[in-house]
Order: sequence, then structure tokens, then C-alpha cells
Amino acid sequence: MTSQAPTRAYRRLSVEERRSQLLDAALSLFAVRAPEDISLDDVAEAAGVSRPLVYRYFPGGKQQLYEAALRSAAEELEHCFAEPPDGPLTRRLANALDRYLAFVDQHDAGFSALLQGGSVVETSRTTAIVDGVRRAAAEHILSHLAVEEPGNRLRMTVRMWITAVEAASLIWLDEEKEPPLDELRDWLVEQFVACLVATAARDEQTAAVVRAALTLESADGPMGSLARRVLPVVGDAAHLL
Amino acid sequence: MTSQAPTRAYRRLSVEERRSQLLDAALSLFAVRAPEDISLDDVAEAAGVSRPLVYRYFPGGKQQLYEAALRSAAEELEHCFAEPPDGPLTRRLANALDRYLAFVDQHDAGFSALLQGGSVVETSRTTAIVDGVRRAAAEHILSHLAVEEPGNRLRMTVRMWITAVEAASLIWLDEEKEPPLDELRDWLVEQFVACLVATAARDEQTAAVVRAALTLESADGPMGSLARRVLPVVGDAAHLL
Repeated sequence: MTSQAPTRAYRRLSVEERRSQLLDAALSLFAVRAPEDISLDDVAEAAGVSRPLVYRYFPGGKQQLYEAALRSAAEELEHCFAEPPDGPLTRRLANALDRYLAFVDQHDAGFSALLQGGSVVETSRTTAIVDGVRRAAAEHILSHLAVEEPGNRLRMTVRMWITAVEAASLIWLDEEKEPPLDELRDWLVEQFVACLVATAARDEQTAAVVRAALTLESADGPMGSLARRVLPVVGDAAHLL
Repeated sequence: MTSQAPTRAYRRLSVEERRSQLLDAALSLFAVRAPEDISLDDVAEAAGVSRPLVYRYFPGGKQQLYEAALRSAAEELEHCFAEPPDGPLTRRLANALDRYLAFVDQHDAGFSALLQGGSVVETSRTTAIVDGVRRAAAEHILSHLAVEEPGNRLRMTVRMWITAVEAASLIWLDEEKEPPLDELRDWLVEQFVACLVATAARDEQTAAVVRAALTLESADGPMGSLARRVLPVVGDAAHLL
């Protein structure tokens, strides 16, 4: 890059564009290194701007930049969850998971750092941002389940599955992104169905949700496929009935 | 308490007993208040000793005391997981969960503070202690599943369920300890079975584990009860097969 390029960029970008450019640069650094190993110099260099410029936008320094980047990542994540309320539930969930897992794949180490805690930049504010994303995910899922007032069991099941998805994402990043994303997505959808059915066995509201959801599923969809693969596994368990 | 009591206690306790008395006092305070709201004075008062004595045992101050208390809680938690490898898997899991949930119930706010992060006393060391407990729990479960070399899917399933149990514990504490402990325990066991069966549908190793486990279960046990309650929920889904 010549020394002209950054100067030209200084003139062209609006305040909003510049801010978003700096956040993008920070997020791409957080994706490959832990936040505590990144300096404002690194962010300035990645964005092709001067350090004072970074400070002008984030006078609170690295902590402020980190929180702003986290907030921007949280907004992006919340957009992943938006899905029209049409068609089989498993398809809607798969669509949302596709976007979520693409986010995990792209942000990589930054996603881990964000969720795993123990980071020097973690504060009650950053924890609140991450919790906000979890809450938003739960609200989205509950709205798709179309329950007026979801009870304790149903809400717990949804929140437990969301935590399990987070855990799976972290393990997936840790284990060199195995299995492939498509397989991971299908499996997470199946885990959701399994958890919901287990809860339905002791909660009438959840049972109604499952029955309604099943009518929208077809034999050639993910539920049909799951049902046909589960039967041989539990087929020998007639002694339990 | 008269002013005699602490003085007598000073003389009687060995170093190890004193240390453990201070840790117990700290843990019982963490159970009702966030670690950042607790001073060494509070710990001294709760233990009925002087502040200098607390400092003699924990010269690193509150952070050191907190980490020692966390390590002691972690050891106690790991003891919860020990269960002889006999009988139906669901019974062994229920026994371990009974001890784990009793720990959650007893440590209450301290347990939440420990797991939720964002605490001023959280460091990479405290995170490592908590992660160690998770790993120990996973190892215990995998050893009960009696698999020589557990594959990626099976390990992921176990770790996802452990995270889900943590989430459930936090929600349970947050929602005024509803449902009752026995019900929560049975439901978590059922969630484990459901997650394992869903994984078995796409993983031969897990399928073998489930088949072997089912032979140890009986109609009047938790698996029989679950099977009979699941059937009416999915009974109308013949169109999926």
C-alpha cells in the first residue's frame, strides 16, 4: 500500500463509515488473536490509519474498542436469528443455524475469546452483551414455537439447547472445524428435536408444540430422516414398554 | 458467641483445620453475595477470627482466598461425580446428579458467580479451575459409557449435555428453585438419554453405547417411564416414516 491510500481514505469516509471500518479491522484481529494480545497499534495498522485516529474514535482505548466491536458482533449475530415464520420448524432452525455457524466460522478465535471468559477485557458490561444475544436467540426460537406464554420447562429447554449450541461451536473451533458445517447444523437441529421431545414427555405445553410442529414435517425432511435412523437404535428396547 | 470462643478456637485448630474453616466461611459468604461484594473483614467475622489471621493464611488477600475457595469447591464437585460402574446408566447418572444438584442448591449465589463470569475476581486461573471440573465430569461420564476411544460425536454430545446441565442449574437458581430437585434430576437424565439417542442416529459408536445401555434398563425404571411418555407425543407422526 502506498502512503497515499490511507490519506485518501481519511477524506472519503464519513464518521459512521470510519467507525465501522475500525470495528471491522478490530473484529478481524480478534478472529485470529486473543483480545489481550492486540494493541491499538495493531488495529491502526490493520485499518491502514494512524493510531491517533483510532483514539479519536475510541478515546477509551482498547477496552472501549473491544466493547464496541463486541456490540457490533452481537448485532450481527442477532440478525442471524431472524427467519420468516413459514414452513417446517426444522427448516427455519437450519436456516438460522447456517447463518450462526457461518458467523462462528468467520470470527473463529474472536468468537471463542468472546464466550470463554477469563479474558482481561471481560467485564460485567461485556457479559451483559453476550447474555443479551443468548436472550435474543431464545426469544426468536420461542416466537417460532408460537406459544403465547411459554412455561418454565419450555423456556429452560430452549435455553439449554442454546448453551449446548455454544458449547458445540467452541468444541468445533477447537477440533479443527470437524465435522463439516452442514453435518454439524443437521445434527444440532436433531439435538433440538430430541430435547424438545424429551421435555414434551413431562410437559403438556411442550407436547402440544411438538405435535403441532410434527404436522408441518414430511417424510423426506430432516424429521423423517431422523425418525428412520432412530428406530433401529431403539428397536430392541421392547422390554421397556 | 462470647469473646472466649474464637480464642479457644485459635488454639485448638491445626493449620489445615484453620485453613479449611476459613474456606468454609468464604464459601458460605459467596453463596449469598457476589465475590466482589465480600471483604476479608466479612470472612474474618463469619469465621469468628481476626482479619490478620485471615491474611496470615491468605497473604495474597481476597483474590487468593477466592481462588482457594474455588479450588476447594471444585474438588467437592469432582467428588460428586464418583459413582460405581454398576447397574443401569440412568441410575448412576441420577445418583451423580443428586449430589451435583445438592451442591448447586447449597452454594447458590456462589455457584452462579463462579460460572457466570464477568466477576472482578475472574482470571484465566479461575476459568481453568472451572474448565477442569467440566473436563472431569465429561471423563466420568465417558468412563461409565465404557467406550475405549470415544469419538468426536460422542464426546461432543457429553460435553454439550454438561453445559446444558450448568445452564439448567443457573436458571433453576434464578427461578426460585423450580421445579423441585427430584423432578429436575429426572428431567436432566431424560435429556441426556434423548441427546444420546439423537447422536446415535448418526454415529455408529454412540448407537452401540445406547444399545448396550438399553439392555440394562427395565420397564419400571426411568427409561421405561420415558419411553411410555414419549410414544403418545410422537404417535401421530406415522407420516414421517
